[in-house]
Amino acid sequence: MKVLVINCGSSSLKYQLIDMQGEKVLAKGLVERIGIEGSILTQKVNGEKYIIEQPMNDHKEAIKLVLDALVDNEHGVIKDMSEISAVGHRVVHGGEKYANSVLIDENVMESIKECIKLAPLHNTPNIIGINACKDLMPNTPMVAVFDTAFHQTLPNYAYMYPLPYDLYTKYGIRKYGFHGTSHKYVSKATAEFLNKDIKALKIITCHLGNGASLAAVEGGKSVDTSMGFTPLAGVAMGTRSGDIDPAIVTFLVKELNLTSDEVNNLLNKKSGIYGIYGKSSDMRDIKKAGLKENDERAILALNVFHYKVKQFIGSYAASMNGVDAVVFTGGIGENSPENREGICENMDFLGIKIDKKKNEETIGNDADISAADSKVKVLVIPTNEELMIARDTKDIAAK
Amino acid sequence: MKVLVINCGSSSLKYQLIDMQGEKVLAKGLVERIGIEGSILTQKVNGEKYIIEQPMNDHKEAIKLVLDALVDNEHGVIKDMSEISAVGHRVVHGGEKYANSVLIDENVMESIKECIKLAPLHNTPNIIGINACKDLMPNTPMVAVFDTAFHQTLPNYAYMYPLPYDLYTKYGIRKYGFHGTSHKYVSKATAEFLNKDIKALKIITCHLGNGASLAAVEGGKSVDTSMGFTPLAGVAMGTRSGDIDPAIVTFLVKELNLTSDEVNNLLNKKSGIYGIYGKSSDMRDIKKAGLKENDERAILALNVFHYKVKQFIGSYAASMNGVDAVVFTGGIGENSPENREGICENMDFLGIKIDKKKNEETIGNDADISAADSKVKVLVIPTNEELMIARDTKDIAAK
Repeated sequence: MKVLVINCGSSSLKYQLIDMQGEKVLAKGLVERIGIEGSILTQKVNGEKYIIEQPMNDHKEAIKLVLDALVDNEHGVIKDMSEISAVGHRVVHGGEKYANSVLIDENVMESIKECIKLAPLHNTPNIIGINACKDLMPNTPMVAVFDTAFHQTLPNYAYMYPLPYDLYTKYGIRKYGFHGTSHKYVSKATAEFLNKDIKALKIITCHLGNGASLAAVEGGKSVDTSMGFTPLAGVAMGTRSGDIDPAIVTFLVKELNLTSDEVNNLLNKKSGIYGIYGKSSDMRDIKKAGLKENDERAILALNVFHYKVKQFIGSYAASMNGVDAVVFTGGIGENSPENREGICENMDFLGIKIDKKKNEETIGNDADISAADSKVKVLVIPTNEELMIARDTKDIAAK
Repeated sequence: MKVLVINCGSSSLKYQLIDMQGEKVLAKGLVERIGIEGSILTQKVNGEKYIIEQPMNDHKEAIKLVLDALVDNEHGVIKDMSEISAVGHRVVHGGEKYANSVLIDENVMESIKECIKLAPLHNTPNIIGINACKDLMPNTPMVAVFDTAFHQTLPNYAYMYPLPYDLYTKYGIRKYGFHGTSHKYVSKATAEFLNKDIKALKIITCHLGNGASLAAVEGGKSVDTSMGFTPLAGVAMGTRSGDIDPAIVTFLVKELNLTSDEVNNLLNKKSGIYGIYGKSSDMRDIKKAGLKENDERAILALNVFHYKVKQFIGSYAASMNGVDAVVFTGGIGENSPENREGICENMDFLGIKIDKKKNEETIGNDADISAADSKVKVLVIPTNEELMIARDTKDIAAK
């Protein structure tokens, strides 16, 4: 059974075709600048690139080209579109309705539309992508896999904000959490790696990339997570502020005369470690400036990032009354020993101690980087959201 | 040496006259409705009340009446105003300039005025109170004791927000922290109670009242605290939200069409446990409804409050790589065994375990409520900000 995984952004689209027998990625690709001059599709098969540069007016044209590329005589990996048994769509926001992935029908489409107000920038292109696929593959089952679903198990005291209650009942203002597919994948993989029953484990998953979130996963269920009503909350990120005193937001509106859109832009695009360092949001640049060139603001940006993650780990240990494993994933979590070290240092009170050498040797691979006497296992486990989406899609489509 | 301690609000004024020999409170009082119909002064001496009801147009008239009450033949405690050797003023915001209390001169007055933009609701009446005292007691030394001063030892990675750096340099947007006088007093008292050198201790002080904040105090220095740029940040409070996803603020401005003042009012006056419960911000009411009447929203409000405090304790243990003592103070912290129990339960991973009976017996007094096998000491220590202010005032005036 072959599953196509689609992740639609506003002007881009990522995809993977996965053969579920052996969970092998047959092809993966990226379409950029959809509806903009310079549209380009890049497909990789066994490391070999196939590039198509031609105008794509909309997502439907883009997906048509994706399907063409997949069946291409020379560069493709399947003979016919009918070989695609199901399509799995990443959908960012499922609101409170979906705690699991779901076969897409008219009702599901309506629900995803209802969540547009909670995630306008994400759910809108997700819907466009689903509709385009349905038009091109009307008889292929489509599955929606929600970024919020895994966190629907949060207890109410963790998801409810201390705000007037009717903001929850009328406007759905509560913590939803994101990166759920990644936290789910990584926490499952952790149990497998440790060869333990996930039901007996308290895991803190740290998905650290340009966007970053942590989750407290107890007995396989998410019991808390650092992103909130939106993906702005939580730790400091590449360009996002994470949690700040909410009075700063009204200060910016009132004293700096900014509109809410301008403040949103400032908090989402100009803040985080980029805001502190001022020159780049790329962790590699900041590490170079901070660790090699002794740039003060780069050092401060690194310290703030490490400190916030460290504090969330401490607070999630308190949430679960303990922690068996801390797991790093995402671009930074998988590939940056310096950041993992910065986060884990001086954490032995919590039983967290890494092996410096093991940590330094681990870049992008599964590994146990704990010191021999660390009570808490510290692991690196590369995430694989596409595979998780494909697995859910296969299970649901098979029914 | 007798010190008068003054805490001026916008229409109220609290005071204590303390004899520093033996640190005995000679008189304490409250003036309410200054500049409003129904002005009233209530003074207590040895538990006996003396009430003056007469119009007071401004703080100067109020302070004149306070001095009259203190020297009153029948109800007073001193013969002459000249017995007051110094006046200590609580000042909410000292910005980055004051890490300690200071003798008030023209320069200090200018600095306090400069901080008005950071705390308009607080510093304005503080200044009015100082000026009124200076007019009435021109030859008596005046000392300013800042709520922010104790937290000026925070490392930069703890006080800097992940925001554009120039918001700090141009507008002073950083974490200041408040309740500093209380956290300082309580952490010192903790070391004395435990008969240990404060330099060797890691203490988490939980000042829980209608306003609430925690501080991580390492070696006698505040290294982190939960309030921030303003006293809105941190844990859920009586009516304040504490930390929330900052995108909720812009959502309220944009989608609900609220002004920044309306949002500020909502977050400061209508949120917190009051917002969740909906009927009262008084912890006693919420405990009655939740614990006795099984009111669902009261239970949720309690759980949210306990959970947030618990998480801050966990994160501050991570900040200091350990904790020797968790100390409860403030109206709720001192007087509410149910809340202390709710916060401390399931914290044994962190070495925190309370003795249920000792906890229940402790209401408003110094006590060690830890279980015999608790690695971390859990204490209750009533705060005494007035005494702390008087001590600082005495030390500075004596120089």
